[in-house]
Amino acid sequence: MTTTARPADSLRTWSIDPAPFGAAPGRVLVKAGRTIVLCTASIEESVPPWMKGQGKGWVTAEYNMLPGSTSPRKGRDRGPKIDGRTTEIQRLIGRSLRAIVNLEALGERSVTVDCDVLEADGGTRTASITGAYVALVQALRSSPGFANGEPLPLSDSVAAVSVGIVGGVPTLDLDYSQDFAAEVDMNVVMTGGGRYVEVQGTGEEATFDAEQLAAMLSLASRGIAQLSILQKSLL
Amino acid sequence: MTTTARPADSLRTWSIDPAPFGAAPGRVLVKAGRTIVLCTASIEESVPPWMKGQGKGWVTAEYNMLPGSTSPRKGRDRGPKIDGRTTEIQRLIGRSLRAIVNLEALGERSVTVDCDVLEADGGTRTASITGAYVALVQALRSSPGFANGEPLPLSDSVAAVSVGIVGGVPTLDLDYSQDFAAEVDMNVVMTGGGRYVEVQGTGEEATFDAEQLAAMLSLASRGIAQLSILQKSLL
Amino acid sequence: MTTTARPADSLRTWSIDPAPFGAAPGRVLVKAGRTIVLCTASIEESVPPWMKGQGKGWVTAEYNMLPGSTSPRKGRDRGPKIDGRTTEIQRLIGRSLRAIVNLEALGERSVTVDCDVLEADGGTRTASITGAYVALVQALRSSPGFANGEPLPLSDSVAAVSVGIVGGVPTLDLDYSQDFAAEVDMNVVMTGGGRYVEVQGTGEEATFDAEQLAAMLSLASRGIAQLSILQKSLL
Amino acid sequence: MTTTARPADSLRTWSIDPAPFGAAPGRVLVKAGRTIVLCTASIEESVPPWMKGQGKGWVTAEYNMLPGSTSPRKGRDRGPKIDGRTTEIQRLIGRSLRAIVNLEALGERSVTVDCDVLEADGGTRTASITGAYVALVQALRSSPGFANGEPLPLSDSVAAVSVGIVGGVPTLDLDYSQDFAAEVDMNVVMTGGGRYVEVQGTGEEATFDAEQLAAMLSLASRGIAQLSILQKSLL
Amino acid sequence: MTTTARPADSLRTWSIDPAPFGAAPGRVLVKAGRTIVLCTASIEESVPPWMKGQGKGWVTAEYNMLPGSTSPRKGRDRGPKIDGRTTEIQRLIGRSLRAIVNLEALGERSVTVDCDVLEADGGTRTASITGAYVALVQALRSSPGFANGEPLPLSDSVAAVSVGIVGGVPTLDLDYSQDFAAEVDMNVVMTGGGRYVEVQGTGEEATFDAEQLAAMLSLASRGIAQLSILQKSLL
Amino acid sequence: MTTTARPADSLRTWSIDPAPFGAAPGRVLVKAGRTIVLCTASIEESVPPWMKGQGKGWVTAEYNMLPGSTSPRKGRDRGPKIDGRTTEIQRLIGRSLRAIVNLEALGERSVTVDCDVLEADGGTRTASITGAYVALVQALRSSPGFANGEPLPLSDSVAAVSVGIVGGVPTLDLDYSQDFAAEVDMNVVMTGGGRYVEVQGTGEEATFDAEQLAAMLSLASRGIAQLSILQKSLL
Repeated sequence: MTTTARPADSLRTWSIDPAPFGAAPGRVLVKAGRTIVLCTASIEESVPPWMKGQGKGWVTAEYNMLPGSTSPRKGRDRGPKIDGRTTEIQRLIGRSLRAIVNLEALGERSVTVDCDVLEADGGTRTASITGAYVALVQALRSSPGFANGEPLPLSDSVAAVSVGIVGGVPTLDLDYSQDFAAEVDMNVVMTGGGRYVEVQGTGEEATFDAEQLAAMLSLASRGIAQLSILQKSLL
Repeated sequence: MTTTARPADSLRTWSIDPAPFGAAPGRVLVKAGRTIVLCTASIEESVPPWMKGQGKGWVTAEYNMLPGSTSPRKGRDRGPKIDGRTTEIQRLIGRSLRAIVNLEALGERSVTVDCDVLEADGGTRTASITGAYVALVQALRSSPGFANGEPLPLSDSVAAVSVGIVGGVPTLDLDYSQDFAAEVDMNVVMTGGGRYVEVQGTGEEATFDAEQLAAMLSLASRGIAQLSILQKSLL
Repeated sequence: MTTTARPADSLRTWSIDPAPFGAAPGRVLVKAGRTIVLCTASIEESVPPWMKGQGKGWVTAEYNMLPGSTSPRKGRDRGPKIDGRTTEIQRLIGRSLRAIVNLEALGERSVTVDCDVLEADGGTRTASITGAYVALVQALRSSPGFANGEPLPLSDSVAAVSVGIVGGVPTLDLDYSQDFAAEVDMNVVMTGGGRYVEVQGTGEEATFDAEQLAAMLSLASRGIAQLSILQKSLL
Repeated sequence: MTTTARPADSLRTWSIDPAPFGAAPGRVLVKAGRTIVLCTASIEESVPPWMKGQGKGWVTAEYNMLPGSTSPRKGRDRGPKIDGRTTEIQRLIGRSLRAIVNLEALGERSVTVDCDVLEADGGTRTASITGAYVALVQALRSSPGFANGEPLPLSDSVAAVSVGIVGGVPTLDLDYSQDFAAEVDMNVVMTGGGRYVEVQGTGEEATFDAEQLAAMLSLASRGIAQLSILQKSLL
Repeated sequence: MTTTARPADSLRTWSIDPAPFGAAPGRVLVKAGRTIVLCTASIEESVPPWMKGQGKGWVTAEYNMLPGSTSPRKGRDRGPKIDGRTTEIQRLIGRSLRAIVNLEALGERSVTVDCDVLEADGGTRTASITGAYVALVQALRSSPGFANGEPLPLSDSVAAVSVGIVGGVPTLDLDYSQDFAAEVDMNVVMTGGGRYVEVQGTGEEATFDAEQLAAMLSLASRGIAQLSILQKSLL
Repeated sequence: MTTTARPADSLRTWSIDPAPFGAAPGRVLVKAGRTIVLCTASIEESVPPWMKGQGKGWVTAEYNMLPGSTSPRKGRDRGPKIDGRTTEIQRLIGRSLRAIVNLEALGERSVTVDCDVLEADGGTRTASITGAYVALVQALRSSPGFANGEPLPLSDSVAAVSVGIVGGVPTLDLDYSQDFAAEVDMNVVMTGGGRYVEVQGTGEEATFDAEQLAAMLSLASRGIAQLSILQKSLL
């Protein structure tokens, strides 16, 4: 949890690597500082019953934190009621991916991307989105429909980063201790081409002005540009 | 559900009135065009067990659409699993209110604000927030702690409006047919003083650029200023 | 909650009016004193899978109290388990309606009547039944099968009222304070033609004799006759 | 399922015997024709937390049909949602018992009566109530508070029977085939002293008039008088 | 619950009798000392949708303890979550039966065996398996496919018994007080022909050596041979 | 999934390494061929309310397969009902650990061991137990009570392996393809000292004789001896 030397406008150290375990056709381990997420993508050559016959595919995501990813231990999301935060995050990941997928070109196929947090030090949802894109591409390439060099049904790449106001300073890519101290917390999802997919800024028990909003958006844009390059280098 | 003549940069017709039914100390009927939401606020002179003894209060919200608020009928949110959309909306309403409540000054009291949609024509979550603030003030004034002219534990007012890109045009306060057609949908929550509380922009199967974002934020800011005046007129 | 001047053998002030909000084809606001219920009826031109091909329709009901309908606030019926009282009431409303509907003449259509209590001051289930009948008629008239003056698939009207023994006195149409004090509580559902549909008398921690039963049934019969006239005046 | 020779105004063959198995202090096997119910009553020398310190006791009931009690097999009431019919019946049994129990005289004790249907041929809820009373008495006598001849905290006995209109004929104690064919079905609960505890008459898809109601109540009264004698003979 | 005189290598007194109640085609009451289980078997002339068209049948089991089977009362397995112990036991019963059923020869039929414990004094799962086999045979003989002397789709009979180490002594057929005191508890399921179906030995907070394991297996084998003879005598 | 060259009496290649991610004080990655399980152990300096004041601790386990651990994808164990297989496995892991933990010497502490399967190729429950022991030791050493060289509250080590009959051949440490083909499947848990903790042999739709049982137990004993050495080498 050392964040000492990093300037407020710099990303943490990020890496995206093929995951050394798992059986899903798409699988990467994404690291953002001490946050480590396993993103796996599975593909089925069919769609749910209610989508049959429309010639369109579907992309969905699930998010989960492993109990050992935090200390003290995080209880599992079992039982009748999934935690509201979990629901929000997995809906966000799914929307972010669908924004750059051409569902018609995907055809009657379903992709499920699973983001399982192995270690949590802030920014797990943005690391998830950034890794999920890479796993999605891997899974698509394993499908009979796209395995032989056919163009992938994607209009662009997608990545995400968090920004915030910490002690009055607009800050990029917050780790847990920064996130905990932040007055404002914002998650930004953008395409490789620099267009917005999602902007979610929130000031729990606080507010922010237009200038701060602009500063955060600018930091996010620069961070995501770097992450987009990292994604491309792997694919 | 035709809203033909309204310019893209104008609010629908809004009203906030005391609700003619209900037993909760705070209760208003908020109308935004054909969207009608009953906001009631109840107050308890205690906090949940896990907050006891901290000298702080709590504010939470629940959101619900009545089955008859839409045609065809909307099924109730009963059973083991609350719909993800419902969870997201009620968390947003709660955060928006807490952004302007001083929980220490509230003392060991709990306020629950219920937003029950009686008729749905787009923008139910922003109408809920805008009405919830008024019901919250009413409920606080009914509490022994604030009934005799004591200053309310509020730092500002809060209101919300939706904006979007419809057919390429930045548009304020979308009704259902506009929302359905929109490329981008954004909900903005701001204080009466003009500071941001939440900014949630999303492009399901679409994206947006920085210029469009700026245009939407500008429209939202103007709309919310008008709604803040409407709120003040009632209180 | 003032019940001062009303004689024990008189109804409270009742009204049934078209609801000024909602999108369901049938919708009324029924008031019995301070008890206010929104009854909406929705119709689908199909039946559940297990009823297909039998040439019969189905009528069902749901009942709910809004959190702001009482003070202190009533918690929502969410989560894995619906409250036993709610289940009993909505089954009663459904049976009462089906007693006067000819399901064969209805054809393969489904009607769902929703009774949402906006303010609760006793007798919510009997107000619900009385209003549900009116909403049902409105919804039927909106269906392609009955919109052009075809005879409705109804054998009679149906209405309901509560009676009880309060301080030894047989009493009609109990409000909450009377219900709370009552030794015996009875709900009676009858047709416009004066036939019984349901008789449910119960003495929680008390009992009653044949004479008291007869007195209560007589009061109920008179009250329901008045409510049947009120229903007819609206339709 | 032979009901041939029995006159419409006669009870089926009933018996109440000590159950030859089980570990609960109260346990009887009640038979009404081919309907067989195991009623067990357990007693705890404490009350639920929310009743502590009031000097009062509590009596509650649970009802269940064993899968092998019917053919075809009846699925178990497991899973998130208890069947509405089950809920109604167990609430009815509990209220019926509490009507003759003096909860203050019971003291801070809890009695749970379980009615498990071993074979179902109509009238399981009324057989349950009739047997539950006997099991309750047995359990009370096993409690330190009442084991040495102290007066039991009961104001009377309680028993129940079903009545109905079958093919136009008022009929007592319906078996399954009669119940299935009945136009009107009524359950009546009365004390040994002849006072009403519950009257629940219902005409699913049918109605009934005052004369039929009187005939059914008269039959029920006679039947319950006989059952009360049977109960006394065992205790 | 005294079991004083019985030697450690002897079975308790066992009996298997036709159940005097219930409507399922297979039904027996199995007693092992004071443990009494009702085993009923129901048969359907169809299989679940996902098995259709494979020409195979299915056999499954459910296990349940009645609340009055123990003192103090055992709460019902209702609500969202079935107890882990219940799940384990009913899976064990189902596997034990399927080990001797030829599912192809059964044809597209489903058998459900229900084991409801009426009184519990240890060894309920092994009594359930031993009785379930007899109920299964009865149910098969009631099916049109096997009612006229056709060979049953069974390769052998199956029975079960518990063994354990109690106070250092290998002991057969433990009652509750022995089970409670046992260092090691083992359930053994075998065919009439003397082959193993399941061996489940467990030392909660204890361990056992190879010699003890051999002694327990030897006792179990002898006990099951006796139970197999008892089963045959009934069929 | 190649198992070609390995003799039937040999273990797969096993390793146990400190996990390179996670925040729990105990964490290892255990590999048995292509089966890879993350075992993390968390410790709390308190016990659940119902154990308070007894001077004893508690050890429990949870088991989970990640969706990407298999292909096709394995659905998550969310929702109202945990899968029966999951329940059985996590109860087995917990019992196996408690067999070698002295709960009194542990003191009022709780250890939760989480076994999350990252890749599944057979034997996930036995790999989980073998890894869980190592994570448990690591977590205990991190506790204030045992961090300074105090003796750990453990009577021995514990490890597990699967054995079975595959094509008639007693086989050690089955991978998925062997497990799928096996006539008999047995899981054996033993201490480092060579004593049995659990023996669970099962022949779904098959049976086995005493000689086969002896052969399997012999193989298991040898395999576990090797795994115990591997565990010791790490600690």
